[in-house]
Amino acid sequence: MKEPKQKNTSFRHRLHEIIYEADTPSGKLFDVVLLIAILASILFVMLESVQSINDKYGEFLNVAEWVITILFSIEYILRIVSVKKPWNYVFSFYGIIDLLSTIPKYLSLILVGTHNLAALRALRLLRVFRILKLARYISESNRLLIALRNSRAKVAVFLFFVLILCIILGTVMYMIEGSENGFTSIPRSVYWAIVTLTTVGYGDIAPGTPLGQLIASVIMILGYSIIAIPTGIVSAEMTKTQVHTNTQACPNCLKEDHKDGAEFCYHCGNELNE
Amino acid sequence: MKEPKQKNTSFRHRLHEIIYEADTPSGKLFDVVLLIAILASILFVMLESVQSINDKYGEFLNVAEWVITILFSIEYILRIVSVKKPWNYVFSFYGIIDLLSTIPKYLSLILVGTHNLAALRALRLLRVFRILKLARYISESNRLLIALRNSRAKVAVFLFFVLILCIILGTVMYMIEGSENGFTSIPRSVYWAIVTLTTVGYGDIAPGTPLGQLIASVIMILGYSIIAIPTGIVSAEMTKTQVHTNTQACPNCLKEDHKDGAEFCYHCGNELNE
Amino acid sequence: MKEPKQKNTSFRHRLHEIIYEADTPSGKLFDVVLLIAILASILFVMLESVQSINDKYGEFLNVAEWVITILFSIEYILRIVSVKKPWNYVFSFYGIIDLLSTIPKYLSLILVGTHNLAALRALRLLRVFRILKLARYISESNRLLIALRNSRAKVAVFLFFVLILCIILGTVMYMIEGSENGFTSIPRSVYWAIVTLTTVGYGDIAPGTPLGQLIASVIMILGYSIIAIPTGIVSAEMTKTQVHTNTQACPNCLKEDHKDGAEFCYHCGNELNE
Amino acid sequence: MKEPKQKNTSFRHRLHEIIYEADTPSGKLFDVVLLIAILASILFVMLESVQSINDKYGEFLNVAEWVITILFSIEYILRIVSVKKPWNYVFSFYGIIDLLSTIPKYLSLILVGTHNLAALRALRLLRVFRILKLARYISESNRLLIALRNSRAKVAVFLFFVLILCIILGTVMYMIEGSENGFTSIPRSVYWAIVTLTTVGYGDIAPGTPLGQLIASVIMILGYSIIAIPTGIVSAEMTKTQVHTNTQACPNCLKEDHKDGAEFCYHCGNELNE
Repeated sequence: MKEPKQKNTSFRHRLHEIIYEADTPSGKLFDVVLLIAILASILFVMLESVQSINDKYGEFLNVAEWVITILFSIEYILRIVSVKKPWNYVFSFYGIIDLLSTIPKYLSLILVGTHNLAALRALRLLRVFRILKLARYISESNRLLIALRNSRAKVAVFLFFVLILCIILGTVMYMIEGSENGFTSIPRSVYWAIVTLTTVGYGDIAPGTPLGQLIASVIMILGYSIIAIPTGIVSAEMTKTQVHTNTQACPNCLKEDHKDGAEFCYHCGNELNE
Repeated sequence: MKEPKQKNTSFRHRLHEIIYEADTPSGKLFDVVLLIAILASILFVMLESVQSINDKYGEFLNVAEWVITILFSIEYILRIVSVKKPWNYVFSFYGIIDLLSTIPKYLSLILVGTHNLAALRALRLLRVFRILKLARYISESNRLLIALRNSRAKVAVFLFFVLILCIILGTVMYMIEGSENGFTSIPRSVYWAIVTLTTVGYGDIAPGTPLGQLIASVIMILGYSIIAIPTGIVSAEMTKTQVHTNTQACPNCLKEDHKDGAEFCYHCGNELNE
Repeated sequence: MKEPKQKNTSFRHRLHEIIYEADTPSGKLFDVVLLIAILASILFVMLESVQSINDKYGEFLNVAEWVITILFSIEYILRIVSVKKPWNYVFSFYGIIDLLSTIPKYLSLILVGTHNLAALRALRLLRVFRILKLARYISESNRLLIALRNSRAKVAVFLFFVLILCIILGTVMYMIEGSENGFTSIPRSVYWAIVTLTTVGYGDIAPGTPLGQLIASVIMILGYSIIAIPTGIVSAEMTKTQVHTNTQACPNCLKEDHKDGAEFCYHCGNELNE
Repeated sequence: MKEPKQKNTSFRHRLHEIIYEADTPSGKLFDVVLLIAILASILFVMLESVQSINDKYGEFLNVAEWVITILFSIEYILRIVSVKKPWNYVFSFYGIIDLLSTIPKYLSLILVGTHNLAALRALRLLRVFRILKLARYISESNRLLIALRNSRAKVAVFLFFVLILCIILGTVMYMIEGSENGFTSIPRSVYWAIVTLTTVGYGDIAPGTPLGQLIASVIMILGYSIIAIPTGIVSAEMTKTQVHTNTQACPNCLKEDHKDGAEFCYHCGNELNE
């Protein structure tokens, strides 16, 4: 490219506007096209895995996949070109997702001779991660994640207790029920305890002895009750963040607990300096 | 009708009172009769679908359906007659429900010669929507819906994350378990992931490999924990509407949403007179 | 009984103290004996229904039942004797429970010749209602019931919406899946919709068609989300009642929202007259 | 040991620092090694119970178990030696857990001749309780337990009601469904009622008659709704501990639990100095 550097920069600037921003009409169009491409791509991956559909429309799905893959490749290259520090993008979370979701189709060309089908299939399915790109379009998601991060420690402790409980209860059930009722090993019994405590209850393994059913009942009621704990934690956390108060103290009367965005103390009317 | 317009209007006014209001004795009677007719109609639709009952009481059910259909038809016509702008009613939500729930029985007369039974059955079942008319009689429902509308955005984001999670986890399980354990395609695996994450757990598809059971356990515990999120959102929303802030407006800057017990406006510092 | 009326009254007074109060040592003893008798009775009813146990220990269970029945009969008579207005007790909730839980054993004597076993068995099982007598001993239960009564209207509206939803979704699934997948009638499909929406998920009926599984997924996610509504209602209700504030206004500064039991205004320090 | 008592004490002091504290580098190292040993031990117990793994790696697992058991024995002895009042440790909760989790391996030596394998297996599995030692390392857990203890009474009442409900509903279903649908005895029907009410829903027992399915539907909707109660209790408890009242004591009457923002004591009317 023999254009002067000035023009090149402005071209990059233009590109950056289209790709990374959504204020201009062309930027908005780019986003809409990308959104449709992502959703179509996920749909194709899912349909391809259905035997009867793949037998019938395999050709069409293959072509469509190539169109979308080339589209994503162009997007990937443009994203690299349009930022000042390309490596920052390449090694960012979305950069890796973008690469991982594009490359499998190309690899299928190279690996077509080999019959390592399982690995190939696994690689192709990486394209499903394209769905994570959708998260870019949700601003609310950040707020939700912050609320979760605040209750992270408490929820982790809760999950740890649930795990201890399931290991102990699973071991006890393994001793009581034994392999004739499907409790063939401790890991399998722990799996059953998790299925029961979380109130999922597949029914692929179910207690057969009266004592086993008694303990299973205790586990169920336990699971039914302790679900209140994470719920209570998150509810309290969200109630707190919603009251929208901060810990800033009034310089005059030292009252705290002001509404977020408050400019005057609700108690003495003094101005709050933020 | 050759009555003078004055009389016609007053007749329409009378009708409007009976049909749309519930203050007068005749208005109340109308509502009670309609309520019973709706409930009876739903019951008949349900009983008709039970083979053994239909064989025995098919005749009676048919006659009863005709009685109710004619009753609803009269109600529909009266509703059109009694309002000033009939089209407003016809194209309103309840207007469409009323038409859809009345018309199928008449269509069954026309279509009796044709053997398009599946379509006919589907049309007949539209009558079940009559149950939505019951919502008219619940005033509390509006308040509940407002509370839900406020937390709509957050719940939508949550559901979107659940969906992304289920698509990714379903794809992973499809790779691990394969078709020999019932995970025959990605859509089916995603269906399984939803069944597991929501703690429904039919057991029609259940993981067979140890690794699959490990991941299933993770999904269950995840599902057991993240149910706290919508609960927390709605709890916080309902707690908020109950306490903390009042609707008093500042006499100076007209800002609302003051903390309970606030003596000065948090925005302009003006004293609040309670 | 030829005792003077005075003595009879004091004897009745004594009895009332023992049976209805728990302050005196004999009153406490009476309660403990009764509690054990109720629990033993429930245990016997449950064990009697287990075929293998009934074959082995049927004789013993029969004798034990007679002992407990006679004990309850004596209690019933004493309760009638010891209150001033016996009919008030007889027709009270607990009076009816006491009678219903005592009488079946006597009826088994009369009906022994007839072979109407099903009815007899049903009557015998009424004794299980003795367990409701336990509720007498729980003072906390009243407080819980008050909290529930406050959120009764909202929860009823919620349940009504769930029911409407299940009837409509059940009908839709009946049309899509049909009898070949177990959706043999609308009532059965509605039953399935309830099983799914409440996240129970027996798996005795499960959707087989892709479209059915898609709708089932929607129902599950719906059920997983709307469980937040009753939880939110009750949480908000309990948070409100726990803040322990009342609507009483301070006679001096008219501040409301005082703590329950507060004797002085938290704002101006004026005495509150209760 | 013929060392002077002074030195012995300081050696014990040193040991105490390493074993019971985590401030010094050696104390930290001790904790990390112990944590790894506990986790490895649990893993070995679980793997040993898997038939195929035990056949292959039984030798290795046996040796590894001996290494860990000897390590725990040393730890146990050191813990006794390093505290001033050894019996206090021996009879403490963790003292008993430590002993119970170490002794089974030694007993397997003694009992190897006898063929009482079931009892031996049960004893070996006691080692799983080593996982409880992990709770030592979680400081957050105490806070969670306090919050639970506060709502203990209410949750107990709730669980009691759930149990009464399940016994009555189970008995009713036993009468309606009978043994041909799997409801072979009252205890089994109560087990089913618990499975249904807690929304676990194995599907090993499922109602077959229409009336049974109707009652099952009621139980499910009941279970779906009343889960709001423990959740509401815990949410309210956690919200309470976060806001609303503070721990400031009135300088006059020493009453605590004042409303946030209160300026006068609600009990004696004295001014609160903040």
